[in-house]
Amino acid sequence: MRILAIDTTGPALSAAVSDGDRILCEMCLNVGLKHSQTLMPAVDQVLERSGLSMADIDLAAVVAGPGSFTGVRIGVCAVKGLCCPGGQKAVALDALEVLAAGVAIPGTLVAPVLDARRGQVYCALFSVDGQGLPVRRMDDAALPIVEFLSLLPEEGSVVFTGDGLSAYAGLIRETLGSRAVLLPMHLNTLRAAAACRLASARESEAVDAAEVLPIYARAPQAVRERLAREEAMKRGEG
Amino acid sequence: MRILAIDTTGPALSAAVSDGDRILCEMCLNVGLKHSQTLMPAVDQVLERSGLSMADIDLAAVVAGPGSFTGVRIGVCAVKGLCCPGGQKAVALDALEVLAAGVAIPGTLVAPVLDARRGQVYCALFSVDGQGLPVRRMDDAALPIVEFLSLLPEEGSVVFTGDGLSAYAGLIRETLGSRAVLLPMHLNTLRAAAACRLASARESEAVDAAEVLPIYARAPQAVRERLAREEAMKRGEG
Repeated sequence: MRILAIDTTGPALSAAVSDGDRILCEMCLNVGLKHSQTLMPAVDQVLERSGLSMADIDLAAVVAGPGSFTGVRIGVCAVKGLCCPGGQKAVALDALEVLAAGVAIPGTLVAPVLDARRGQVYCALFSVDGQGLPVRRMDDAALPIVEFLSLLPEEGSVVFTGDGLSAYAGLIRETLGSRAVLLPMHLNTLRAAAACRLASARESEAVDAAEVLPIYARAPQAVRERLAREEAMKRGEG
Repeated sequence: MRILAIDTTGPALSAAVSDGDRILCEMCLNVGLKHSQTLMPAVDQVLERSGLSMADIDLAAVVAGPGSFTGVRIGVCAVKGLCCPGGQKAVALDALEVLAAGVAIPGTLVAPVLDARRGQVYCALFSVDGQGLPVRRMDDAALPIVEFLSLLPEEGSVVFTGDGLSAYAGLIRETLGSRAVLLPMHLNTLRAAAACRLASARESEAVDAAEVLPIYARAPQAVRERLAREEAMKRGEG
């Protein structure tokens, strides 16, 4: 199966083509240019370098958020356009899960953090299963980093990845000490190659590309439940 | 510091540019084309996409082997040519060490294996230090995979990476059982971005680009010592 994957949710941009268990071509670009201008040339290039055209692609994958609102919409719309002529299905992937898929060592606990501006990070927590795939341990959330760190397990190593590290590396190290593993530059960005791998495992979740929806960060389950309880109490008092 | 890194030692090709602690652009290509035809366009592209020319590069890094003899020479010669006009220095990196740098989780034991044909793999063993950098535990060697596996520690997990996995995944799993962690497709190829990261840590080893030499696999230390002992015994008998 040939998969085209794209990511435009953050400051970097990535596009890749895989065929079976091989990444044919991947391009990652992190130069602060506008994704609306750089995405389609990058897609053209990874296809051309792979010796393929869009007609040869069996499945599309788009990193659909959470991330920059503009970036998320560029990616989601691009994949709808790309799949329109050939009718390929598409998988919408979670940006935090794709980041976690960059660590494929079973037993690891991975905390992806993306800079969400306004003093918050998009964050989640994953363990890694025997196949090297991420298993969700915490819902996506937009939280101040300090609040996210307070939700993490109190023992064991946690591997941090994502562009949130540039702003919060010091704070993470202060809080978790030697339990915090911060991935270096070549391993802390979203990679379309990781999206290809995740998409091949999530093929059953593919939908008509026209129906792909953005993924926006929600409050974490614990907070939503607390809010629901508070809401119920208010209603009880009212 | 801006670094240009290239790898042509194996079936895949990779080029990347980094600036400080950011990978500006990376391209990875694994389509079985001739590196002599595809390397320079890839270098042009990562430079152009990064908004840079060769004159803006401070340091070059080349993955210098072990690997395909032709591929090794293409990379080494290309870096000499690229650095000639500007006089940049270059770092020659070991292919197995660059592969190991793809796993930056401290405490991990990493066994990179590259298909060396003739029933052998180029192999080595690294641990990962607190900075996420590889620390060599075994010299590079060209060995039958079975012999390499017999040299590994008898306890604990070992993370395998490299194109040798396609041919030997089954045998590795049979021999090490659940102690063997095999990295998936997006994490088991040489990446020029990992070479950028390693080169920035090895800047002090930079030499005049004209003096960069290929790295060929030697017999492992244990075998060399055994051969030396046998040689000494023969001399004693003669």
